[in-house]
Formats: sequence, structure tokens, C-alpha cells
Amino acid sequence: MEGAGNENLDERSALLTVENSSDYTGGITARYTLNSERRYTPPPPVGSDTQPEEEQHCDTQLLDVKFKSLNYDTCENTLFRDEESAKSYKEVLRLQMSRWLVMFLIGVFTGLIACGIDVSIKYASALKYSTIKHYMDECIKTNCNSIPLLLWIAWNTSGVLIAAILVVYVEPVAMGSGIPQIKCYLNGVKIPRVVRLWTLVCKAVGVIGSVVGGLAVGKEGPMIHSGAVVAAGISQGRSTAFNLDFKIFEYFRTDTEKRDFVSGGAAAGVSAAFGAPIGGVLFSLEEGASFWNQALTWRILFTSMISTFTLNVVLSYAKGEPWNLSNPGLINFGEFSNLSYDGFEIPIFILIGAMGGLFGALFNHINYKLSVFRKQYLSTLKWPNVLEAVIVASMSAVAAFILIFTISNCRSLGEDENENPLQLYCEDGQYNSMATLWFQTPEESVKSLFHNHPGTYKPVTLLLFFTVYFLLASWTYGLSVPSGLFIPCLLTGAAWGRLVGILLSLIFPDQPWADPGKYALIGAAAQLGGVVRMTISLTAILVEATGDITFGLPIMIVLMVAKWTGDLFNEGLYDIHIRLMSVPILQWEPPPITSNILASDVMSHPVNTLRTIERVGRVVDMLKNEPHDGFPVVEDDSENDGDHFGSFRGLILRSQLIVLLKMKIFCEAESEQTVRNRFSKLKLKHFREAYPRFPSIEHIHISAHERDCLIDLTPYMNPSPYCVKDSASLPRIFRLFRGLGLRHIIVINNHCQVVGIVTRKDLARFRVWHHRGRMGLEELQISQSVRSTR
Amino acid sequence: MEGAGNENLDERSALLTVENSSDYTGGITARYTLNSERRYTPPPPVGSDTQPEEEQHCDTQLLDVKFKSLNYDTCENTLFRDEESAKSYKEVLRLQMSRWLVMFLIGVFTGLIACGIDVSIKYASALKYSTIKHYMDECIKTNCNSIPLLLWIAWNTSGVLIAAILVVYVEPVAMGSGIPQIKCYLNGVKIPRVVRLWTLVCKAVGVIGSVVGGLAVGKEGPMIHSGAVVAAGISQGRSTAFNLDFKIFEYFRTDTEKRDFVSGGAAAGVSAAFGAPIGGVLFSLEEGASFWNQALTWRILFTSMISTFTLNVVLSYAKGEPWNLSNPGLINFGEFSNLSYDGFEIPIFILIGAMGGLFGALFNHINYKLSVFRKQYLSTLKWPNVLEAVIVASMSAVAAFILIFTISNCRSLGEDENENPLQLYCEDGQYNSMATLWFQTPEESVKSLFHNHPGTYKPVTLLLFFTVYFLLASWTYGLSVPSGLFIPCLLTGAAWGRLVGILLSLIFPDQPWADPGKYALIGAAAQLGGVVRMTISLTAILVEATGDITFGLPIMIVLMVAKWTGDLFNEGLYDIHIRLMSVPILQWEPPPITSNILASDVMSHPVNTLRTIERVGRVVDMLKNEPHDGFPVVEDDSENDGDHFGSFRGLILRSQLIVLLKMKIFCEAESEQTVRNRFSKLKLKHFREAYPRFPSIEHIHISAHERDCLIDLTPYMNPSPYCVKDSASLPRIFRLFRGLGLRHIIVINNHCQVVGIVTRKDLARFRVWHHRGRMGLEELQISQSVRSTR
Repeated sequence: MEGAGNENLDERSALLTVENSSDYTGGITARYTLNSERRYTPPPPVGSDTQPEEEQHCDTQLLDVKFKSLNYDTCENTLFRDEESAKSYKEVLRLQMSRWLVMFLIGVFTGLIACGIDVSIKYASALKYSTIKHYMDECIKTNCNSIPLLLWIAWNTSGVLIAAILVVYVEPVAMGSGIPQIKCYLNGVKIPRVVRLWTLVCKAVGVIGSVVGGLAVGKEGPMIHSGAVVAAGISQGRSTAFNLDFKIFEYFRTDTEKRDFVSGGAAAGVSAAFGAPIGGVLFSLEEGASFWNQALTWRILFTSMISTFTLNVVLSYAKGEPWNLSNPGLINFGEFSNLSYDGFEIPIFILIGAMGGLFGALFNHINYKLSVFRKQYLSTLKWPNVLEAVIVASMSAVAAFILIFTISNCRSLGEDENENPLQLYCEDGQYNSMATLWFQTPEESVKSLFHNHPGTYKPVTLLLFFTVYFLLASWTYGLSVPSGLFIPCLLTGAAWGRLVGILLSLIFPDQPWADPGKYALIGAAAQLGGVVRMTISLTAILVEATGDITFGLPIMIVLMVAKWTGDLFNEGLYDIHIRLMSVPILQWEPPPITSNILASDVMSHPVNTLRTIERVGRVVDMLKNEPHDGFPVVEDDSENDGDHFGSFRGLILRSQLIVLLKMKIFCEAESEQTVRNRFSKLKLKHFREAYPRFPSIEHIHISAHERDCLIDLTPYMNPSPYCVKDSASLPRIFRLFRGLGLRHIIVINNHCQVVGIVTRKDLARFRVWHHRGRMGLEELQISQSVRSTR
Repeated sequence: MEGAGNENLDERSALLTVENSSDYTGGITARYTLNSERRYTPPPPVGSDTQPEEEQHCDTQLLDVKFKSLNYDTCENTLFRDEESAKSYKEVLRLQMSRWLVMFLIGVFTGLIACGIDVSIKYASALKYSTIKHYMDECIKTNCNSIPLLLWIAWNTSGVLIAAILVVYVEPVAMGSGIPQIKCYLNGVKIPRVVRLWTLVCKAVGVIGSVVGGLAVGKEGPMIHSGAVVAAGISQGRSTAFNLDFKIFEYFRTDTEKRDFVSGGAAAGVSAAFGAPIGGVLFSLEEGASFWNQALTWRILFTSMISTFTLNVVLSYAKGEPWNLSNPGLINFGEFSNLSYDGFEIPIFILIGAMGGLFGALFNHINYKLSVFRKQYLSTLKWPNVLEAVIVASMSAVAAFILIFTISNCRSLGEDENENPLQLYCEDGQYNSMATLWFQTPEESVKSLFHNHPGTYKPVTLLLFFTVYFLLASWTYGLSVPSGLFIPCLLTGAAWGRLVGILLSLIFPDQPWADPGKYALIGAAAQLGGVVRMTISLTAILVEATGDITFGLPIMIVLMVAKWTGDLFNEGLYDIHIRLMSVPILQWEPPPITSNILASDVMSHPVNTLRTIERVGRVVDMLKNEPHDGFPVVEDDSENDGDHFGSFRGLILRSQLIVLLKMKIFCEAESEQTVRNRFSKLKLKHFREAYPRFPSIEHIHISAHERDCLIDLTPYMNPSPYCVKDSASLPRIFRLFRGLGLRHIIVINNHCQVVGIVTRKDLARFRVWHHRGRMGLEELQISQSVRSTR
């Protein structure tokens, strides 16, 4: 389906942007004069920018035509009504129960996967660091320091190599944290292969590789994607990867139901990652769900709870302390209960928030430039991507090695917990605390920065660590490996936050409030907020990960200020990556001052319509030649027959037509009885079975003889799809689209004739640009896939 | 407006329920045959019930016609488009800033009101209890026990008298917690006078009276209502109570903007009440917002934060410890940090949750029966309501007095904190712990039950206290006083929870996990969850009030099980009261198995339509005779002119027509120039100024001469309101209505002719009933206001 009719796609996008007036009906032309009232402010010239203008345009001002919409609108055709009529309240209850059961299973499996990843990383990392430590301790005496360095590089590159190969050669969609992809999915965009089993496998194995490979990544972000895949898999009751169909949960094989479960899965992922069930629910809401629904939210909370509980119980066994429920998430920030804050610290928090916003914006800018570069020069190639990942992995080892050997920050053993203390050039009974930061997983380093004794780190240690890690992290996100963004942000933030804390304790000596660990927490929140720009879900997540409500208010303040500051410069990193993917995502609200843009301006037209009773040949030709996924059905006996602007009757989907053609539900003149039999056997079941991978029209054989048959579309079309009048404004259509999760809206004129069709891309094209304090409206172009599959 | 056309209302409701088929157009009759397919299961006979059948029917199966809908749909007429065209992006930004500013002010004022209430109650209660204690201590020696009893009764009755008089004679809508009313408001129902200044005054003063009056009520619930009033007041930039107009925030004088601010106010109220900013946001979402919006949620979080912060700072000054930020809410549950739980306790938590559900359902049942009784016999009367409140106040004193003197539960002084320890018949150096439970505000008693030493309360003390307080509380909610439901639920729950804890510590002696205080917390959550049946927001609220995330999982489990158990028997108490108010509230989802009910079945018809150019006289007559708030506008030159089923052009609101008539925007033949001048002066401003209390048609003078003028509705009507085809199903219309917050949907046929109109009440009429394990669909009747204003 994806490849079908590409030539026409180009034609259509040309139509969309160039041809803006047609006179298919007399009544409409008048309205086009309104167009002149539209006040598009043209984007400012990019003159001073060194980046070649066209290339940049090509990268961020396109919507990729390959992304289809999910369909959340029920098609209320005769088949659906028949099925509903046959339903009893008992079945309604049974369905409800199944939903809870599926959510339960999603929670359990997400928790188990999180456990698996956690335990694997733990053992592999322990092995890695103890081996290297062994050689380090040896070589410091015999001066063979190149051996541990090479060993370290070997460990890093081999881990990252596995991750990169899985991503580049097996499943490219498994790269990164997956949060932008899940955000798009919940927004209603079908990202190809994003919730497939192989994606999960690559993601889970890959993230172990990249964390063990010592990259500046976390394992938390990928958990969200993993949870979503688990949800999609379980709720459909089958696996296409293994060609298995358990014949259960068949009712859930629609976009609407699947999306609900995927929101649950994403929440379960967050919950398992951070031990934050409420944070998980809020994440699903803030980042995804356009239609809030109370009952669904309860189920999401339930699955989040189950997920963190499963993880907690299994990890308690894995750690040899059964039922000691102290591991609600993959990371928790440890106890802060001895710390508090005073009212006068609030201005300091606000300043830290602003710093977080600045650092975050810088991070995003660097990462954006790198990503644009990657997209232009690397996205079509395979091995250079693997190579880049391997280079970064080696660089991480080398940078760490150099820092460890340059900075001598000695501390007495025993004051702080660490598993692999490195003595290096310190005296006996001491260890190097710079080495500690590098010589454990990033999660452990975050905890060290939060909780180690105030004097553990010298300012210069923190400053250098921060600088190097910041650059490494901004280089790393976007590599072709599964990688979480939360932990590197927390770690860099904790480093500079702790630095602020140390400065404060120097300015205000002997003040208990000037605690470096506390300021490390605040800094971590600020940096994370500055990069991802979430507020409400992030507040809940961080508070739950802290396990203490005390720092709720400071965290909230810091996140909000960080968001405000960062938004002055650029968007959140996930949004930047979504824009780079050219996904037609719909924002929460229509762009401002667009009330003068009317349906007749945004719609695609002319539209190819079908008649209620149509020739099979025409249906087949239209499916072959038109890329669209929905076709308006009009009254057969319309007056202006030639143009098919007949009176509007309904909407039929490509997938429905395909199933109808495949099952040959059309009238062959000779045997009406056969057709009626076939018809009576056709159930919604057949459509669900084909979901979501309906065959392409090329795979359906229609004989020349059959092409002359007639097909009655009335029982299968949606007889009352949402439609608007051509005088409806863009914000109105936008709200309808966003509020109800639509895929098509039919535009009709005053005489109920179809004059156009509005799809997601027609709306997503209108976007507000910000540039050096000015803002305006821009229209994006719709193009074919910018580059192949990546 | 409310009183207009009452006779016609009856007629209309008759139309709705009786006349279900009409043949105004040929194409539709066929569709009515589908009606026979509808499978309404008739509600089962209420045979065995002692309650007279008809009366019960009258009370719960009606929708009160007095409740109008709020209108969240923008009318995109020429005036609106002109205003939008004139807008610049700078103004868009300015508006955004104003929204944040308003939210800030809402937070500050809500916090201040909470402070005022808190401090007043604190001082008045301290005075009350110390006075009574004085006489008690005296009289125990001289045997004059009737003096403290009478004094106690006097204190109680005088407090409650103030509260009851304010509610009964000044502002009846201030009664109760106000949560059901706010829930309805956020759902889109206009509850008369619910967000007026006088309501706030009565609520705030009244709640002080009822808490000081010793009723089984809390001050937390009313804070939510107070926050909502503050929000509505500030966002409109004027006070109609004082006839003040500050001429600011004029843009926000629409239902949509006002609703957004009211959600923020409600959240700020929760936040101030419980120190739970995230809980506040979730409350607004769970109970209200049908359209989730990211930017709005951030603002809501901001106002919540400001509100709890203001309260915290001001209370720290009031308590003489400036900037010691330890009072985030009106109630906080104190430190639980020394406690934890083990995995094997989870089954116990589940059992407690189930108990909470049972007790909650019992509470709701008792309260429901009492409320039905009150509605039937007391609702039209004034002084009996005051009397009832006073009786309950005296009863509370008497019950407490008897319990204190019957149960002798002596404990050493100094082991537990309490402000007014009563010695009574205990030995010197001891005090009566039963007396402690009664001799402080309920908030303090909750904390005592959570934190007092394990041996403080004997089981019999707790059992008797629970029984008496449970009955008192279920009698109290629904009295004509402002009263919160959270605290009495927490208190009864804490009592039986602590009892469970004591039993467990007897069964498992010397086990540190069997802590009565911890189980008091779990029990409190269970009881509250069993009564109100919220889960996600309540989890956040309770966790934030505890200040510790440790009990997050147990609280979640308990709330969820309590909800499931309770839902087997009846609805949550707020929903019960909403049903008793006969409010046409829309649930989150359409009732199941209603896909066979079509628009043509639910719509009101025939509809009175207006022509695009209409005679003023006809407009006036229609406004006088028709109670509706929206009228479809049809093409003037329609074919079937007599019936006005012309081709659909737009929708015009009653309020718009009133303003047009008032400003005399119609063509007097003699001076077209004048009209054009008047027309050019007409701005959206004029509509906003009249909002929300548009004059009634009776107050607009139209001379006989003017009646013959013509009025052109085209520039003022909404040219593209949402409409559906007559074949659309109930769930489809429901989702459109709920998702976009509509007030009217026009039903058109295949030829774009108006065939009917669907309003909120037409949809709210369809409801699922549950009865002894069976369920089915019922259709409610729409009636005139069941009884007068109450």
C-alpha cells in the first residue's frame, strides 16, 4: 500500500500547494476571494545563516507523505450495526473485563522486560568494570596503562556494535529513545513498524548493548517504547512476526482500541523505568492522549501499578531479598529525607531553572545541528552509521580515561558507597572520585552525585565531568543505537547542580541548607526540563523517583522556569526530532489567527468520488491510481454526473474496498443468489482479521469479466462520517480532527455536494514559526518520503 | 430567560417522549422503522421496595429543564472574523500572558481564602474547646455536668445556625461541598449562581460556622468550590454583585475561557486544601475537563502551585514561624517516614479496600435515602431546613458527651500531643482518649488516629466512635450548610482502619508492620474511596497529603478495590447527588449498545427555523414562545417555504438575537444609512459586555412599526456549526458533543435540509440502569424544574 501510486502523490502535493482555486461549482468561487484576506507573514530570509538555505528548508519544512493516519472513527455501517444489535450487556461486561485483563498482562510483561534489561545490564556492567579495574590496579604499578584503555575501548565498542547492528541492519525504528515515535503514534500518526515485535527485541537487546557499551545513555526512555510494543502485541492477541494468532481479543483489532492499550503500555514503561505510576499516567496524557477518558485513565493507572509492582517483586528476588519492595523502578534517587529547603531558596531555584533552560537549549541546538548533518549525509548509508556509533563508544572510553588520569581527586575509602573504587595515584586507603563517576553505570553516577558526602567532588572535577559528558551526550542522542535521554540529562544536570551547591556552601559556609546533594537534584531536574520541556508528567516522575514529596514544589518551579527559558530559543528535543522526521503531527491547538483560512482553502480538491452503486473496474482503477485511503460516496443519480459532485452519502475506506474486492462481494449478473450468500457471510470479523496489514490492490486479482460487475457500497460505507461546510474555518476543522481523532473530513457545500476532503496533512501543514522574536504562519510542503526508509 | 415560555416546555418534553415519528419529509419516515430495532430493556419492577414507586421515579428519573448548557463552540461569524483579522501575533502573546496572570491571581486569592478560613476555624475552635474544657474540669468535681453539655450545645448550634441561615436564606447553592456543582459546571451545565460572589461569601463564612459548630464536616471540599468562584470572578474582570467593571480581561468573557479558568480555580482549591498541586490538576481532569489541553494543564499546575505556596507562606507567618514552609495544605497527614510495608500485606490492603467499598456503599445508601426524603418533604421549606441543621448540631454535641462519659479510656499525659486533654474520671496525670477524638476539629482527630501511640485507643473506643461518627456523617452531608465530605470519611475510615490495625497487632504480636497508625491511614483511604469513588486524583491527593511516596502503592490498591466493590452496589456520592439534582450531565462515554439509536430518534423536531432575512416581528415572537437557545437559519428561497425546512445555512443563538434586537440592528426602510452606521459600530465587544446575563426578551421594547422591519442574520449567525446527518448514531453524536463541548447539533437530511436539533438533554436522557446484577437502557423524562429554586 505504501508504494502505490507514487507518481500521483507528487501530483497531489503539487495540487495542494499550487492550485488554490478552481471553479467546480459556481457558489464557491465567491468564497475564494476571502483568500486574499489571509495574512501569511512570509518567513524571514535566512540570509546570514551559513547553512545552505535550500537544504535546511528541505529538512524541516516538509511533511513526509509516507506517514498515514490512524483511524479512530468507527465506521457505522450495516455490518457494524448488525454486530452491535446482536450484542448483549453481558458481552459489554465481558469486553470490559478483557480490557482490564489485557492491561494486567501488559503491566506484568512490561515489568518483566524491565527486569530482564536491568539484571542483564547490572551483571554485564559489573563484569566490565571489575575486569578493567583489575588491569587498572595492576597497570598503575607496572605502567602498562594502554592495556586497560584498550580493554575499555574493546568493551565499549563491542557493546555498541551489537546495538548499532541491530538498529541499522534489523530495525531502524528501534533507534533512540522511541519517545518521539510513541508521541506520534498516540497523536494518531501511523509510524511504520513502530510497535512490532522485532522492534522490541532490537530495542531491548540494543539498549543493553549501548548502556554496557558505556555510551552516555540511559535504559529508561527505551522502556517506554518497549511498553508500547508489549501493549500493541498483547492487545491484538497475535504475533505477525511468528505468524501466530491466538484468536483472542479479536474485538480489539481496531486503531481505537489498540491506541488505548498502547497509551497504557507507554505508561507502564514509564512506571517501570522510574517507579512512577502516576508519572506514567501523566506522561501518557501529556504526550499523547488527545481524548481524555476517565475509564481509560483508570485502566492506565492499573497497568502502571502492576508494572512497577512486578518489577519490584522480581527485582527483590533477583537481589536475594524476596518481597523487600524497595525497587519500584529501574532508577530511584535514594533517600532525601534528611534534607529540606527554606523559602528564601526559591529565587535560587528559579535561577537554576533558568540555567537549566539555557543549557537545555544549547544541548538541543547542538543535537539539532548534528541531526541535520546526519540526516543529510548519513541517513541513506548503513555502515557509516555503525561506524559513528563505534567511534562515539571509543571516544567515551578515551575521554573517561584521560579525565581519570588528569584529575586527581582523592577521597578516603569507606565514606561513600561505590562498587569499584579506583586508587590510581591516590594514597593507600583512598580512591579517585573522578574515576567513580565514570566507573559505574550512569544511573549509579547520578545517585553518587545526589548522595555522596559534600566534600567528595572538587569543583574542577565536576566542571570537567560536566563539560565532557554534556558534549558526549549531545553527540550520542540520535546515534543509531537505542538510547534513553533522561539519564544523561539528569547526570549532566546533577554535575552542574552540585557545582552550584558547592559554590553556595562556599559563599554561605556552615549553612545546612547549602547542601551540594540537594542542589544536584535541583540541577538534574532543571537540565532534564530544559531538554525535554515536559512539566507536569516530569514533576510527577521526579517526585516519585525521589520517593519524597518534600521537593515537589522546588522541582515544579525549576521545571516550569526551565521550560519557559528554553522555549525562548528552541523546541523540546523530542519535538525537534519529530520535526526532523517530517511527521504530520497535530499540535494541541490550531495555530493562532487562522480563522480566515477556510475549509475551501485547506481541502484537497477535486476529489475522486465513488457512486453508491459503482462498477468494479472503476473501483479497482481508482484504488490503483489514487493514493488516498478514503473515498466519499455520492448519490448515483446526481445532476452533475460527469464530475461526481453528487449529493454526499457516505465515506468508504480503501481497506474496506480491498476486503470487498478480495471477497468478491459484487453482483455478477448470472447468480445473484451466490452473491447474497456471500454477502450474508461477510462479517466485521473479516475486516478485523485483515487488520492492520490489508493486502495491496496489486495483490487482488480481478478478471476482465468481473470489472463490469456492479458493487453496492451502501451497506459497507460509513453513512454519516463527520463533515463540514466549505465555510468552516481551519480552527474549527482542527478541533474536530484533534478532538475526535479523525482521518478524513468531507467538505460539502450548501447543497450537500462533496467539494473536497481534508486530511491530517492538510492541517499539519499550517505551522507557526518563531524566529528572533518574530512569529508568523508558514505552510509546509507535502513531499514523498524525503529519503528512503530511515 | 429562565421563566420564559414554561407552557411550551411541557409541550416540548411531551413531544420528546411521546411523538416519535413525524413525516415532515418523505425520506425520513423509512428510517423510523429502524426504531423498532431498538432494544430497550424495560427497568425491572420496583415491587418489593417500600418506597412509593412513583415518587422515586419522580426524583431520580427526571432531567431538570432549568439547567442550560454552557457553550464552548466559537461562533465564527463575520464579527468574529473581523476581530481575528485585526489581531496580530503580539496580541496573541499578550493574551497568553494575561492568561498566566489571571491564573497567578487565582492561585493567590484561593490561597488567601484558605488561610482566612483556616485561621478563623483554628481560633474559634480553640476558644470553644478551652471554654468547654474549663467547665468540664470544674463540673467533674462539682457534678454540674449539664453546664458543659449545654455550653457545648450552645456553641454548636450557634455556629451551625449562622451557616444554615446563610445557605437557606441567602444562597442555597452554597450548601454541601460544592463538588457536584463544580463537576456539573465543568461538564458543561450552567448551574444558576454557582460561581457568584455571594455564593463564595456564604460558602466561606458558612463552612467556618459548620466546622466550629462541631458538625461531622471538613473545610476541604468547600475550598474547591471557593477556588472555582474566585476563578470565575477574577477572570471576568468585574463583579456583578458590586456592579463593578474593571474593564480588564474582556476577551475572557466567554464560556470557553471562563471554564478553563474555573478548572484552574478548582485545582487551586484542592491544592490549598490538601497541599496537593498535582492532585489538584488530576482532580480537574478526572472530574471535569472533557477536552484535555496541554497548555491549559500547565497553567492549571501553575495556579495550583501558587495557591499552595501562598497558603504555606501566609500560614507560616500566622503561626509565627515565617518561611517555615511546612503547611502546604489545610490538612496534612504528618510524617509517616518511620513506617513501611511488606509485600505480604498486600492481601490485607485488598481486604481493607473491599471493606472500604462496603462501608462506602452503605454510607451512600443511607445518605441517598435521607436526601430523597429531604427533597420530598423539606426542599420547598426554609425554616425546617435550618431546624434540621441545628438538631444535628445538638445531636453531635450530645452524642460526643455521652460517649465521653460512658467510655473511660485513660492514657498517661504527655505520650501523645493534644491541646485540650480532658481528665474526666481518669487518674491524675492521665487523660481520656475518647474525649480527645471529640474535643478537637475533625482534622486534628484524623491526625491523632494516624500518629498516636499504638496503645492510645481501646478497640471499644474506636468501635463506638466509628459507629456514631459514621451515622452522624451520613446524616450531615446534605444538610443546608456548607460541608466537606473528605474529612468525615477520612475520620471514620481512620477509626475502623486503626481497629483493624489493633486486631492485626493482637494476632501478630510484636510485628512492627502491624502498626495501628499505618492501618488507620489505609482505612481512611479505603473509606474515602468507597464513598467518592475517585481513584487517580485521590491517589495523588492522599499521597501528597501524606508527604511521602512510600504508601503510594497501598493507597492506589485500596482506592481501586474500594471503587470496584462500591460500584457493585451504587454510584459515588457526588454522582448520586448530581442525579438527585436532575442535572443533564454527560458521562464520559455514550451508553453501550446504542448504535441503533439514530439522530432522527433523539433529536427534537419539528424545529423552528429562521430565514436568513427575517421579519423582526417573527424573531420576537419566536424568542417569546420558544424556550430554545439556538435557532437554525435556513435559506430564504427554500422550496418548502411553509415548513421552513429550507436548506441549512447556519445557527444563531438567542443571546445574539437579543443583542441584535436591543441594538436595533435591522433595516428600517426610511434610513438605510443609519442602520449601516449602527451595523459598522457593532462589535463582538457588545456581545461580551452583555455576557453572561443577557436581558430577557420581555425587557426589550420593539414597537409595532419595528416589527415589520427586516433583519439580515447572515453576518451574525455561525455559518458553519457542527451538524450531523439524520442517519448518525447516538454514540457518534455523543462523542461530538462531549469531545467539543457543544450546545446544539443540527440534524440535516441528505438534501441539507434541517430536520431536527439535538441538545444536551436529548443525549443525557439515555442512561444505563443497573439493578441487582441486570443492566439495561432507560430513557429519562425532561421536566420543568422539579421543585422551585432549591
